[in-house]
Amino acid sequence: MTYCVGIITREGLVMASDSRTNAGYDQANICKKLHTFVRDSNRVLIALTSGSLSCSQSITTLLERDFAAGRGLASAENMYDAARVAGEQVRNVAKMDREGLERDNFSFNVHLLLGGQIGKEKPALYMIYPQGNPLCASEESPYLQIGESKYGRPILDRGVHFDTTPLPMAIKYALISIGSTMRSNVAVGPPVDMAVYETDKLSLTRVRRFNKDDEDFQRVQSQWDASLRRAVQDLPNLNL
Amino acid sequence: MTYCVGIITREGLVMASDSRTNAGYDQANICKKLHTFVRDSNRVLIALTSGSLSCSQSITTLLERDFAAGRGLASAENMYDAARVAGEQVRNVAKMDREGLERDNFSFNVHLLLGGQIGKEKPALYMIYPQGNPLCASEESPYLQIGESKYGRPILDRGVHFDTTPLPMAIKYALISIGSTMRSNVAVGPPVDMAVYETDKLSLTRVRRFNKDDEDFQRVQSQWDASLRRAVQDLPNLNL
Repeated sequence: MTYCVGIITREGLVMASDSRTNAGYDQANICKKLHTFVRDSNRVLIALTSGSLSCSQSITTLLERDFAAGRGLASAENMYDAARVAGEQVRNVAKMDREGLERDNFSFNVHLLLGGQIGKEKPALYMIYPQGNPLCASEESPYLQIGESKYGRPILDRGVHFDTTPLPMAIKYALISIGSTMRSNVAVGPPVDMAVYETDKLSLTRVRRFNKDDEDFQRVQSQWDASLRRAVQDLPNLNL
Repeated sequence: MTYCVGIITREGLVMASDSRTNAGYDQANICKKLHTFVRDSNRVLIALTSGSLSCSQSITTLLERDFAAGRGLASAENMYDAARVAGEQVRNVAKMDREGLERDNFSFNVHLLLGGQIGKEKPALYMIYPQGNPLCASEESPYLQIGESKYGRPILDRGVHFDTTPLPMAIKYALISIGSTMRSNVAVGPPVDMAVYETDKLSLTRVRRFNKDDEDFQRVQSQWDASLRRAVQDLPNLNL
Protein backbone atom coordinates (compact mmCIF):
# COMPACT_ATOMS: atom_id res chain seq x y z
CA MET A 1 0.00 0.00 0.00
CA THR A 2 0.95 3.65 -0.23
CA TYR A 3 -0.24 7.02 0.87
CA CYS A 4 0.60 10.19 -1.07
CA VAL A 5 -0.85 13.64 -0.65
CA GLY A 6 -0.49 16.86 -2.61
CA ILE A 7 -1.65 20.19 -1.22
CA ILE A 8 -1.91 23.34 -3.31
CA THR A 9 -2.37 26.78 -1.77
CA ARG A 10 -1.85 30.31 -3.00
CA GLU A 11 1.70 30.19 -1.60
CA GLY A 12 2.70 26.97 -3.32
CA LEU A 13 2.71 23.19 -3.20
CA VAL A 14 3.45 20.49 -0.65
CA MET A 15 3.94 16.98 -2.05
CA ALA A 16 4.52 14.12 0.35
CA SER A 17 4.48 10.33 0.45
CA ASP A 18 5.30 7.37 2.62
CA SER A 19 7.81 4.91 1.19
CA ARG A 20 6.69 1.45 2.17
CA THR A 21 6.18 -1.00 -0.63
CA ASN A 22 5.02 -4.55 -0.21
CA ALA A 23 4.10 -7.57 -2.25
CA GLY A 24 1.98 -9.67 0.06
CA TYR A 25 2.94 -9.75 3.72
CA ASP A 26 6.47 -11.03 3.35
CA GLN A 27 8.13 -8.63 1.05
CA ALA A 28 8.12 -5.19 2.60
CA ASN A 29 10.70 -2.73 1.34
CA ILE A 30 11.46 0.97 1.21
CA CYS A 31 11.03 2.71 -2.11
CA LYS A 32 11.02 6.37 -3.02
CA LYS A 33 7.69 7.37 -4.53
CA LEU A 34 8.56 11.04 -5.03
CA HIS A 35 10.17 12.05 -8.29
CA THR A 36 11.25 15.53 -9.35
CA PHE A 37 11.67 17.04 -12.79
CA VAL A 38 13.39 20.41 -12.60
CA ARG A 39 14.75 22.93 -15.08
CA ASP A 40 15.74 25.98 -13.10
CA SER A 41 14.00 29.21 -14.10
CA ASN A 42 11.76 27.19 -16.43
CA ARG A 43 9.84 24.42 -14.67
CA VAL A 44 9.48 22.39 -11.50
CA LEU A 45 7.41 19.19 -11.53
CA ILE A 46 6.95 16.77 -8.67
CA ALA A 47 5.35 13.36 -9.21
CA LEU A 48 4.08 10.91 -6.59
CA THR A 49 3.00 7.38 -7.45
CA SER A 50 0.83 4.66 -5.92
CA GLY A 51 -0.10 1.18 -7.09
CA SER A 52 1.94 -1.73 -8.39
CA LEU A 53 5.60 -0.77 -7.93
CA SER A 54 6.60 -2.53 -11.10
CA CYS A 55 4.19 -0.48 -13.21
CA SER A 56 4.77 2.86 -11.46
CA GLN A 57 8.53 2.33 -11.84
CA SER A 58 8.10 1.80 -15.57
CA ILE A 59 6.08 5.00 -15.83
CA THR A 60 8.61 7.14 -13.95
CA THR A 61 11.53 5.53 -15.79
CA LEU A 62 9.98 6.46 -19.13
CA LEU A 63 9.03 9.95 -17.92
CA GLU A 64 12.62 10.49 -16.71
CA ARG A 65 14.14 9.16 -19.94
CA ASP A 66 12.04 11.53 -22.01
CA PHE A 67 12.73 14.42 -19.64
CA ALA A 68 16.50 13.90 -19.91
CA ALA A 69 16.15 13.98 -23.70
CA GLY A 70 14.22 17.27 -23.59
CA ARG A 71 10.89 15.64 -24.43
CA GLY A 72 7.68 14.93 -22.49
CA LEU A 73 7.63 16.75 -19.16
CA ALA A 74 10.61 18.82 -20.33
CA SER A 75 8.77 20.28 -23.30
CA ALA A 76 5.13 20.43 -22.13
CA GLU A 77 4.02 24.04 -22.47
CA ASN A 78 1.79 24.12 -19.41
CA MET A 79 0.67 21.98 -16.48
CA TYR A 80 -2.38 20.62 -18.28
CA ASP A 81 -0.17 19.35 -21.08
CA ALA A 82 2.26 17.95 -18.51
CA ALA A 83 -0.59 16.03 -16.87
CA ARG A 84 -1.51 14.71 -20.32
CA VAL A 85 2.11 13.65 -20.90
CA ALA A 86 2.04 11.71 -17.63
CA GLY A 87 -1.33 10.21 -18.58
CA GLU A 88 0.03 9.09 -21.95
CA GLN A 89 2.91 7.34 -20.18
CA VAL A 90 0.41 5.61 -17.88
CA ARG A 91 -1.42 4.42 -21.00
CA ASN A 92 1.81 3.24 -22.62
CA VAL A 93 2.66 1.07 -19.65
CA ALA A 94 -0.93 -0.15 -19.42
CA LYS A 95 -0.62 -1.23 -23.03
CA MET A 96 2.50 -3.23 -22.15
CA ASP A 97 1.42 -4.76 -18.84
CA ARG A 98 -2.33 -4.65 -18.32
CA GLU A 99 -3.25 -7.80 -20.18
CA GLY A 100 -0.55 -9.86 -18.46
CA LEU A 101 -1.61 -8.59 -15.04
CA GLU A 102 -5.31 -9.17 -15.55
CA ARG A 103 -4.73 -12.68 -16.82
CA ASP A 104 -3.49 -13.47 -13.30
CA ASN A 105 -6.20 -11.40 -11.58
CA PHE A 106 -4.01 -8.42 -10.74
CA SER A 107 -5.38 -5.04 -11.67
CA PHE A 108 -3.54 -2.18 -13.32
CA ASN A 109 -4.00 0.31 -10.53
CA VAL A 110 -1.34 3.01 -10.83
CA HIS A 111 -2.31 6.52 -9.74
CA LEU A 112 -0.10 9.58 -10.03
CA LEU A 113 -0.09 12.99 -8.45
CA LEU A 114 1.68 15.64 -10.50
CA GLY A 115 2.22 19.09 -9.06
CA GLY A 116 4.34 21.97 -10.23
CA GLN A 117 4.72 25.11 -12.24
CA ILE A 118 5.77 25.76 -15.81
CA GLY A 119 6.95 29.27 -16.74
CA LYS A 120 4.62 32.09 -15.79
CA GLU A 121 1.49 29.96 -15.51
CA LYS A 122 0.12 29.44 -12.00
CA PRO A 123 1.18 26.28 -10.16
CA ALA A 124 -1.23 23.36 -10.52
CA LEU A 125 -1.83 19.94 -9.01
CA TYR A 126 -3.22 16.95 -10.92
CA MET A 127 -4.17 13.39 -10.23
CA ILE A 128 -3.72 10.93 -13.11
CA TYR A 129 -6.04 7.93 -13.03
CA PRO A 130 -4.95 4.41 -14.08
CA GLN A 131 -6.88 5.04 -17.31
CA GLY A 132 -4.62 8.02 -18.07
CA ASN A 133 -7.15 10.84 -17.61
CA PRO A 134 -6.18 13.82 -15.42
CA LEU A 135 -8.11 15.55 -12.62
CA CYS A 136 -7.10 19.01 -11.43
CA ALA A 137 -7.22 20.23 -7.81
CA SER A 138 -9.09 23.49 -7.35
CA GLU A 139 -9.35 26.35 -4.89
CA GLU A 140 -12.40 24.62 -3.40
CA SER A 141 -10.65 21.22 -3.26
CA PRO A 142 -7.03 22.18 -2.69
CA TYR A 143 -5.62 18.74 -1.97
CA LEU A 144 -5.50 15.38 -3.71
CA GLN A 145 -4.63 11.97 -2.32
CA ILE A 146 -3.73 8.60 -3.80
CA GLY A 147 -3.38 5.18 -2.18
CA GLU A 148 -4.68 4.57 1.34
CA SER A 149 -6.38 7.95 1.56
CA LYS A 150 -9.18 7.71 4.12
CA TYR A 151 -7.32 7.71 7.44
CA GLY A 152 -5.47 10.90 6.58
CA ARG A 153 -8.37 12.80 5.13
CA PRO A 154 -10.38 14.22 8.07
CA ILE A 155 -7.51 16.42 9.25
CA LEU A 156 -7.15 17.85 5.72
CA ASP A 157 -10.90 18.41 5.41
CA ARG A 158 -10.90 20.36 8.64
CA GLY A 159 -7.83 22.50 8.07
CA VAL A 160 -6.58 23.01 4.52
CA HIS A 161 -7.79 26.05 2.57
CA PHE A 162 -6.34 27.40 -0.66
CA ASP A 163 -6.41 31.05 0.31
CA THR A 164 -5.70 31.03 4.02
CA THR A 165 -3.37 28.09 4.75
CA PRO A 166 0.25 29.29 4.80
CA LEU A 167 2.88 26.95 3.39
CA PRO A 168 4.45 26.10 6.81
CA MET A 169 0.97 25.04 8.00
CA ALA A 170 0.36 22.98 4.84
CA ILE A 171 3.64 21.16 5.56
CA LYS A 172 2.40 20.27 9.04
CA TYR A 173 -1.01 19.15 7.76
CA ALA A 174 0.65 16.85 5.23
CA LEU A 175 2.93 15.34 7.86
CA ILE A 176 0.09 14.77 10.33
CA SER A 177 -2.08 13.26 7.60
CA ILE A 178 0.68 10.77 6.72
CA GLY A 179 1.47 10.13 10.39
CA SER A 180 -2.16 9.24 11.12
CA THR A 181 -2.26 6.89 8.15
CA MET A 182 0.95 5.13 9.18
CA ARG A 183 -0.48 4.62 12.63
CA SER A 184 -3.72 3.06 11.40
CA ASN A 185 -2.35 1.00 8.48
CA VAL A 186 0.80 -1.11 8.67
CA ALA A 187 1.17 -1.08 4.89
CA VAL A 188 1.97 2.66 4.99
CA GLY A 189 5.36 3.33 6.57
CA PRO A 190 8.38 5.62 6.96
CA PRO A 191 10.47 7.30 5.76
CA VAL A 192 8.30 10.17 4.60
CA ASP A 193 9.51 12.06 1.54
CA MET A 194 8.42 15.64 1.11
CA ALA A 195 8.97 18.41 -1.44
CA VAL A 196 7.83 21.98 -0.95
CA TYR A 197 7.54 24.38 -3.85
CA GLU A 198 6.99 28.11 -3.49
CA THR A 199 4.89 29.80 -6.17
CA ASP A 200 6.98 31.48 -8.90
CA LYS A 201 10.30 30.26 -7.56
CA LEU A 202 10.89 27.93 -10.53
CA SER A 203 13.55 26.05 -8.64
CA LEU A 204 13.30 23.30 -6.03
CA THR A 205 15.46 23.51 -2.93
CA ARG A 206 13.09 22.29 -0.25
CA VAL A 207 13.15 18.48 -0.33
CA ARG A 208 13.49 16.36 2.80
CA ARG A 209 13.27 12.76 3.92
CA PHE A 210 11.89 12.18 7.42
CA ASN A 211 13.20 8.87 8.71
CA LYS A 212 11.34 6.94 11.39
CA ASP A 213 13.67 8.25 14.10
CA ASP A 214 13.92 11.79 12.71
CA GLU A 215 13.72 14.06 15.75
CA ASP A 216 11.49 16.67 14.11
CA PHE A 217 9.11 14.00 12.85
CA GLN A 218 8.91 12.34 16.25
CA ARG A 219 8.39 15.67 18.00
CA VAL A 220 5.48 16.51 15.67
CA GLN A 221 3.90 13.10 16.30
CA SER A 222 4.20 13.18 20.08
CA GLN A 223 3.15 16.82 20.41
CA TRP A 224 0.20 16.10 18.13
CA ASP A 225 -0.86 13.12 20.25
CA ALA A 226 -0.70 15.20 23.41
CA SER A 227 -2.58 18.11 21.82
CA LEU A 228 -5.37 15.83 20.62
CA ARG A 229 -5.80 14.28 24.04
CA ARG A 230 -5.92 17.73 25.61
CA ALA A 231 -8.37 18.94 22.97
CA VAL A 232 -10.71 16.01 23.70
CA GLN A 233 -10.39 16.66 27.42
CA ASP A 234 -11.25 20.32 26.91
CA LEU A 235 -14.46 19.53 25.04
CA PRO A 236 -17.58 20.00 27.15
CA ASN A 237 -18.85 16.77 28.68
CA LEU A 238 -22.00 15.50 27.00
CA ASN A 239 -25.17 15.11 28.88
CA LEU A 240 -26.26 11.50 28.55
CA MET B 1 -23.26 3.64 3.88
CA THR B 2 -23.05 3.59 7.65
CA TYR B 3 -20.58 4.19 10.41
CA CYS B 4 -20.94 2.52 13.81
CA VAL B 5 -18.43 2.38 16.62
CA GLY B 6 -18.36 0.54 19.93
CA ILE B 7 -15.86 1.42 22.65
CA ILE B 8 -15.27 -0.73 25.72
CA THR B 9 -13.33 0.51 28.74
CA ARG B 10 -13.05 -0.59 32.35
CA GLU B 11 -15.88 1.85 33.19
CA GLY B 12 -18.30 0.60 30.55
CA LEU B 13 -19.46 0.80 26.96
CA VAL B 14 -20.18 3.53 24.43
CA MET B 15 -22.13 2.43 21.35
CA ALA B 16 -22.83 4.98 18.62
CA SER B 17 -23.94 5.15 15.02
CA ASP B 18 -24.94 7.54 12.30
CA SER B 19 -28.39 7.03 10.81
CA ARG B 20 -28.17 7.71 7.12
CA THR B 21 -29.31 4.97 4.83
CA ASN B 22 -29.21 5.09 1.08
CA ALA B 23 -29.94 2.95 -1.91
CA GLY B 24 -27.93 4.52 -4.71
CA TYR B 25 -27.75 8.31 -4.79
CA ASP B 26 -31.44 9.07 -4.91
CA GLN B 27 -32.89 7.35 -1.94
CA ALA B 28 -31.36 8.75 1.23
CA ASN B 29 -33.31 8.28 4.44
CA ILE B 30 -32.91 8.28 8.17
CA CYS B 31 -32.98 4.96 9.94
CA LYS B 32 -32.10 4.00 13.47
CA LYS B 33 -29.25 1.50 13.53
CA LEU B 34 -29.04 1.20 17.31
CA HIS B 35 -31.18 -1.45 19.00
CA THR B 36 -31.40 -2.19 22.71
CA PHE B 37 -32.34 -5.37 24.54
CA VAL B 38 -32.79 -4.74 28.24
CA ARG B 39 -33.99 -6.76 31.25
CA ASP B 40 -33.31 -4.64 34.29
CA SER B 41 -31.05 -6.20 36.91
CA ASN B 42 -30.37 -9.05 34.48
CA ARG B 43 -28.94 -7.92 31.13
CA VAL B 44 -28.31 -4.96 28.85
CA LEU B 45 -27.45 -5.56 25.20
CA ILE B 46 -26.92 -2.91 22.54
CA ALA B 47 -26.70 -3.82 18.87
CA LEU B 48 -25.52 -1.67 15.96
CA THR B 49 -25.91 -2.74 12.34
CA SER B 50 -24.33 -1.89 8.99
CA GLY B 51 -24.92 -3.20 5.48
CA SER B 52 -28.07 -3.74 3.43
CA LEU B 53 -30.91 -2.17 5.41
CA SER B 54 -33.35 -4.84 4.27
CA CYS B 55 -31.17 -7.64 5.66
CA SER B 56 -30.12 -5.90 8.86
CA GLN B 57 -33.79 -5.08 9.52
CA SER B 58 -34.69 -8.73 9.17
CA ILE B 59 -31.95 -9.69 11.61
CA THR B 60 -33.00 -7.17 14.27
CA THR B 61 -36.69 -7.98 13.77
CA LEU B 62 -36.02 -11.65 14.43
CA LEU B 63 -33.72 -10.89 17.38
CA GLU B 64 -36.40 -8.63 18.87
CA ARG B 65 -39.17 -11.19 18.31
CA ASP B 66 -37.16 -13.87 20.09
CA PHE B 67 -36.18 -11.49 22.86
CA ALA B 68 -39.80 -10.57 23.52
CA ALA B 69 -40.60 -14.27 23.78
CA GLY B 70 -37.81 -14.83 26.31
CA ARG B 71 -35.60 -16.64 23.82
CA GLY B 72 -32.33 -15.78 22.04
CA LEU B 73 -30.71 -12.68 23.49
CA ALA B 74 -33.10 -12.90 26.46
CA SER B 75 -31.87 -16.34 27.51
CA ALA B 76 -28.21 -16.38 26.46
CA GLU B 77 -26.17 -17.11 29.58
CA ASN B 78 -23.22 -14.90 28.74
CA MET B 79 -21.98 -12.41 26.17
CA TYR B 80 -20.21 -15.03 24.07
CA ASP B 81 -23.44 -16.99 23.73
CA ALA B 82 -25.29 -13.75 22.95
CA ALA B 83 -22.83 -13.04 20.16
CA ARG B 84 -23.45 -16.56 18.87
CA VAL B 85 -27.23 -15.96 19.01
CA ALA B 86 -26.78 -12.83 16.90
CA GLY B 87 -24.50 -14.74 14.53
CA GLU B 88 -27.09 -17.49 14.11
CA GLN B 89 -29.68 -14.88 13.20
CA VAL B 90 -27.28 -13.41 10.64
CA ARG B 91 -26.94 -16.91 9.18
CA ASN B 92 -30.72 -17.42 9.15
CA VAL B 93 -31.25 -14.28 7.13
CA ALA B 94 -28.31 -15.13 4.87
CA LYS B 95 -30.04 -18.45 4.18
CA MET B 96 -33.19 -16.59 3.18
CA ASP B 97 -31.71 -13.73 1.16
CA ARG B 98 -28.12 -14.39 0.09
CA GLU B 99 -28.83 -16.36 -3.05
CA GLY B 100 -31.39 -13.85 -4.31
CA LEU B 101 -29.01 -10.96 -3.68
CA GLU B 102 -26.01 -12.59 -5.31
CA ARG B 103 -28.00 -13.53 -8.39
CA ASP B 104 -28.29 -9.78 -9.01
CA ASN B 105 -24.71 -9.03 -7.99
CA PHE B 106 -25.49 -7.63 -4.57
CA SER B 107 -23.48 -9.01 -1.70
CA PHE B 108 -24.76 -10.10 1.69
CA ASN B 109 -22.71 -7.63 3.71
CA VAL B 110 -24.38 -7.18 7.11
CA HIS B 111 -22.08 -6.54 10.07
CA LEU B 112 -23.21 -6.20 13.68
CA LEU B 113 -21.68 -4.78 16.80
CA LEU B 114 -23.07 -6.26 20.00
CA GLY B 115 -22.04 -4.80 23.35
CA GLY B 116 -23.43 -5.32 26.82
CA GLN B 117 -23.39 -7.21 30.06
CA ILE B 118 -25.22 -10.30 31.26
CA GLY B 119 -25.46 -10.91 34.99
CA LYS B 120 -22.21 -10.77 36.91
CA GLU B 121 -19.96 -11.44 33.93
CA LYS B 122 -17.81 -8.52 32.76
CA PRO B 123 -19.21 -6.36 29.94
CA ALA B 124 -18.05 -7.37 26.47
CA LEU B 125 -18.11 -6.03 22.93
CA TYR B 126 -18.36 -8.20 19.82
CA MET B 127 -18.43 -7.75 16.08
CA ILE B 128 -20.45 -10.29 14.09
CA TYR B 129 -19.27 -10.87 10.53
CA PRO B 130 -21.65 -11.43 7.59
CA GLN B 131 -20.70 -15.11 7.85
CA GLY B 132 -22.04 -15.21 11.40
CA ASN B 133 -18.75 -15.63 13.29
CA PRO B 134 -18.03 -13.34 16.24
CA LEU B 135 -14.91 -11.30 17.11
CA CYS B 136 -14.39 -9.93 20.61
CA ALA B 137 -12.82 -6.58 21.48
CA SER B 138 -9.97 -6.79 23.99
CA GLU B 139 -8.11 -4.61 26.44
CA GLU B 140 -5.45 -4.09 23.77
CA SER B 141 -8.03 -3.33 21.06
CA PRO B 142 -10.83 -1.69 23.02
CA TYR B 143 -12.94 -0.48 20.13
CA LEU B 144 -14.63 -2.02 17.10
CA GLN B 145 -16.06 -0.33 14.02
CA ILE B 146 -18.35 -1.39 11.20
CA GLY B 147 -19.27 0.36 7.94
CA GLU B 148 -17.21 3.31 6.72
CA SER B 149 -14.55 2.93 9.39
CA LYS B 150 -11.33 4.48 8.13
CA TYR B 151 -12.00 8.21 8.45
CA GLY B 152 -12.95 7.89 12.10
CA ARG B 153 -10.18 5.56 13.13
CA PRO B 154 -7.04 7.70 13.66
CA ILE B 155 -8.58 9.65 16.53
CA LEU B 156 -9.53 6.38 18.26
CA ASP B 157 -6.07 4.90 17.69
CA ARG B 158 -4.50 7.93 19.29
CA GLY B 159 -6.76 8.28 22.29
CA VAL B 160 -8.81 5.28 23.43
CA HIS B 161 -7.36 2.98 26.09
CA PHE B 162 -9.22 0.33 28.04
CA ASP B 163 -7.73 1.14 31.43
CA THR B 164 -7.27 4.89 31.33
CA THR B 165 -10.05 6.36 29.20
CA PRO B 166 -12.92 7.50 31.43
CA LEU B 167 -16.45 7.05 30.10
CA PRO B 168 -17.10 10.79 29.53
CA MET B 169 -13.95 10.88 27.37
CA ALA B 170 -14.98 7.74 25.47
CA ILE B 171 -18.28 9.49 24.68
CA LYS B 172 -16.38 12.43 23.20
CA TYR B 173 -14.05 10.18 21.21
CA ALA B 174 -17.03 8.35 19.71
CA LEU B 175 -18.76 11.60 18.77
CA ILE B 176 -15.62 13.08 17.18
CA SER B 177 -14.97 9.86 15.29
CA ILE B 178 -18.47 9.94 13.83
CA GLY B 179 -18.29 13.69 13.19
CA SER B 180 -15.07 13.28 11.20
CA THR B 181 -16.61 10.48 9.15
CA MET B 182 -19.74 12.51 8.37
CA ARG B 183 -17.57 15.35 7.21
CA SER B 184 -15.50 13.23 4.83
CA ASN B 185 -18.25 10.93 3.49
CA VAL B 186 -21.69 12.13 2.42
CA ALA B 187 -23.15 8.64 2.85
CA VAL B 188 -22.70 8.90 6.63
CA GLY B 189 -25.07 11.42 8.18
CA PRO B 190 -26.97 12.68 11.23
CA PRO B 191 -28.69 12.14 13.56
CA VAL B 192 -26.17 10.30 15.71
CA ASP B 193 -27.62 7.70 18.09
CA MET B 194 -25.65 6.87 21.21
CA ALA B 195 -26.05 4.55 24.17
CA VAL B 196 -23.77 4.58 27.19
CA TYR B 197 -23.64 1.66 29.59
CA GLU B 198 -21.85 1.75 32.95
CA THR B 199 -20.26 -1.51 34.12
CA ASP B 200 -22.43 -3.50 36.56
CA LYS B 201 -25.41 -1.16 36.29
CA LEU B 202 -27.57 -3.75 34.47
CA SER B 203 -29.99 -1.07 33.36
CA LEU B 204 -29.82 1.40 30.49
CA THR B 205 -30.76 5.02 31.09
CA ARG B 206 -28.19 6.85 29.02
CA VAL B 207 -29.46 6.90 25.45
CA ARG B 208 -29.47 10.02 23.30
CA ARG B 209 -30.05 11.10 19.73
CA PHE B 210 -27.93 14.03 18.51
CA ASN B 211 -29.76 15.74 15.66
CA LYS B 212 -27.88 17.78 13.06
CA ASP B 213 -28.75 21.03 14.81
CA ASP B 214 -28.30 19.69 18.35
CA GLU B 215 -26.49 22.46 20.23
CA ASP B 216 -24.17 20.16 22.16
CA PHE B 217 -23.23 18.29 19.00
CA GLN B 218 -22.55 21.51 17.11
CA ARG B 219 -20.51 22.92 20.00
CA VAL B 220 -18.33 19.79 20.09
CA GLN B 221 -17.79 19.98 16.32
CA SER B 222 -16.88 23.65 16.23
CA GLN B 223 -14.70 23.56 19.33
CA TRP B 224 -12.96 20.50 17.93
CA ASP B 225 -12.29 22.27 14.63
CA ALA B 226 -10.84 25.26 16.43
CA SER B 227 -8.71 23.09 18.74
CA LEU B 228 -7.28 21.14 15.81
CA ARG B 229 -6.34 24.30 13.95
CA ARG B 230 -4.69 25.68 17.06
CA ALA B 231 -2.89 22.38 17.68
CA VAL B 232 -1.47 22.42 14.14
CA GLN B 233 -0.45 26.04 14.56
CA ASP B 234 1.33 25.20 17.83
CA LEU B 235 3.40 22.42 16.25
CA PRO B 236 7.00 23.47 15.59
CA ASN B 237 7.61 24.62 12.01
CA LEU B 238 9.55 22.07 9.99
CA ASN B 239 12.85 22.91 8.51
CA LEU B 240 12.66 22.28 4.79
